[in-house]
Amino acid sequence: MRVTIELSPFLRSVAGVLAAVLMLPINSVAPQKGPQGRAPQPLILEGQGSFYVGGRLKHTPATSGSRNDPFGIEDDIMIDQMYVQYQVPQNHGTHVAVVMVHGCCLSGKTWETTPDGRMGWSEYFLRQGRPVYIPDQTSRGRSGFDASAINQARLGAVPSTSIPNVFTFGRRAAWKIFRLGPEYPKAFPDEQFPVGAFDELAKQVIPDLNATLSNPNPTYANLAALGVQLKGAVLMGHSESGFFPERAALVDAAGVRGIISIEGYCPTTLGQRELAGLARIPILLVFADHLSDIPEIPGARALADCRTFVRQVIDAGGDAIVLHLPEAGLKGNSHMLMQDLNNLTIADLVLAWIDKHVERSR
Amino acid sequence: MRVTIELSPFLRSVAGVLAAVLMLPINSVAPQKGPQGRAPQPLILEGQGSFYVGGRLKHTPATSGSRNDPFGIEDDIMIDQMYVQYQVPQNHGTHVAVVMVHGCCLSGKTWETTPDGRMGWSEYFLRQGRPVYIPDQTSRGRSGFDASAINQARLGAVPSTSIPNVFTFGRRAAWKIFRLGPEYPKAFPDEQFPVGAFDELAKQVIPDLNATLSNPNPTYANLAALGVQLKGAVLMGHSESGFFPERAALVDAAGVRGIISIEGYCPTTLGQRELAGLARIPILLVFADHLSDIPEIPGARALADCRTFVRQVIDAGGDAIVLHLPEAGLKGNSHMLMQDLNNLTIADLVLAWIDKHVERSR
Repeated sequence: MRVTIELSPFLRSVAGVLAAVLMLPINSVAPQKGPQGRAPQPLILEGQGSFYVGGRLKHTPATSGSRNDPFGIEDDIMIDQMYVQYQVPQNHGTHVAVVMVHGCCLSGKTWETTPDGRMGWSEYFLRQGRPVYIPDQTSRGRSGFDASAINQARLGAVPSTSIPNVFTFGRRAAWKIFRLGPEYPKAFPDEQFPVGAFDELAKQVIPDLNATLSNPNPTYANLAALGVQLKGAVLMGHSESGFFPERAALVDAAGVRGIISIEGYCPTTLGQRELAGLARIPILLVFADHLSDIPEIPGARALADCRTFVRQVIDAGGDAIVLHLPEAGLKGNSHMLMQDLNNLTIADLVLAWIDKHVERSR
Repeated sequence: MRVTIELSPFLRSVAGVLAAVLMLPINSVAPQKGPQGRAPQPLILEGQGSFYVGGRLKHTPATSGSRNDPFGIEDDIMIDQMYVQYQVPQNHGTHVAVVMVHGCCLSGKTWETTPDGRMGWSEYFLRQGRPVYIPDQTSRGRSGFDASAINQARLGAVPSTSIPNVFTFGRRAAWKIFRLGPEYPKAFPDEQFPVGAFDELAKQVIPDLNATLSNPNPTYANLAALGVQLKGAVLMGHSESGFFPERAALVDAAGVRGIISIEGYCPTTLGQRELAGLARIPILLVFADHLSDIPEIPGARALADCRTFVRQVIDAGGDAIVLHLPEAGLKGNSHMLMQDLNNLTIADLVLAWIDKHVERSR
């Protein structure tokens, strides 16, 4: 069976990790309880900070949608930049940096404290010795966006149909998109997302302004440049950005040491040259549970397409694998698996894959 | 002379700090050089994380500006929430937490690594033992915003004049607003902002969507709630948010232990009841240099109004003071003084004020 063949080498390594994880008491990872949260051990950092990658000047006729600005509203603004926040743990040794990219209608917050106040993946990876870099996608959050078209419409200079679509979703849709259950507010019986904290997840959902961007999305090139700047990094995407690491590698693979695509979508029509390029990079694709249980969500189709993509990469000589969590014994995980109750168990699987496929391959 | 009377007690305490600072070699604070920056000593944290304050559900007819959404575009979205990122240093003792709020067209990035890669105030305050909380203002950055009106205009459901003004500024305006010099790209001879890194500052400038908010700005109540949640905090605002700490205290002063208003604007028409409330909280107002040197910028007026406000608070029995940096011997500082070349010297003055006026007053 093809699926078993793809998974078995990884599952063997996973089994040991799972066993190790299961021997730890679950409270060995202390929860963060909101502000002034106390971690069990101090977090010791060699450094931290933030910076922007990319960006270009654009001359705009509408820095504002009001002509009353004393400076005028025609000027050069910076667009397409990508904000990146980073932390480097003291004992990182030779570990490769991990870049964690959020999905649609979300921000770098995705990887921080969970909605119910537990430790997120960014801090957990740090505590496992990994330098962690958290961008806000170009045109999202602290990266800013180009509001020119919106302002021009307000001024009457362009028709309102010229406004880029500003996409977000409300809580009824979010319940299904995040696969918390069949219908708001009913949860799947084995649901791993902390549904009691759903309102806190809803606060993370912010407008997606990717429609303001040029094509191809500048985030691809920005991620590629970040990898080069870091002299090599594992790029991790989620959902909307699930395939961004591959797209970044197709722009410039020089800094892409590994690719992790979480709950994303895979094209199945890449050419041989593209597949040959991706075949030089270890690739892990992670899928959670209930992929077929919500009619509006094409989860099973996404998994099938990604299995096809994996087969194409393997046929091109690459190292690609699908980790479908239920097949690894983890049931009930949501689309927001990095925030689920067992999020650190899944993190351990990802870290084990990095150790085996990225770092030991050096 | 009134100014001297207001300043002298503080200047006396400042003098000692300045002397101590000047005895340190300037490179005793190591620079952050972009990604993987190395700080001289490890940063040891008791905890860190992020969370949202506030937020409410709003029923919207337009979660998106396209009717093709499979989930429909009518739903309940979360609005008015405020994202807060925090770090608590290991040796914080009994130090009061400091909340640092950014100004117009900026985000929490304001307080992080400077445009030329030096340490920002957030890390410096941490290294001085202060728990630091960095919000993105409600409707900015990772806090998200309500895009309903923009989407409704795109759909033709409302006229484009209903679109809230999305305000930002370009680099010619930024040069003057940040008071880097009389005209882009000419810098003041004594300019303290690292003008060679101006493009990196321009990348921090993002659209301001405060016009999408209800009145009063929900950030006031969110900051007040944050102070209560922290069981007391010093609130610090800058520029647009310069007076937000006072506004927060006027909503609920229970959690406001101290107020720092940097390069902001002061109303001079507060009533006796409001002034009596503010008179119970130590207040520091900081102004930089070149206040009168750019015709479009009402800097001298802002300083004069804040001196009036200080006098009113003092008359109401309060402890309020203006720190005009040139009077303390610091020349050439910009509107972005927390990013200037001497930013940590200014931080020391602010920290000394907290020690003396907030913490020793407990």
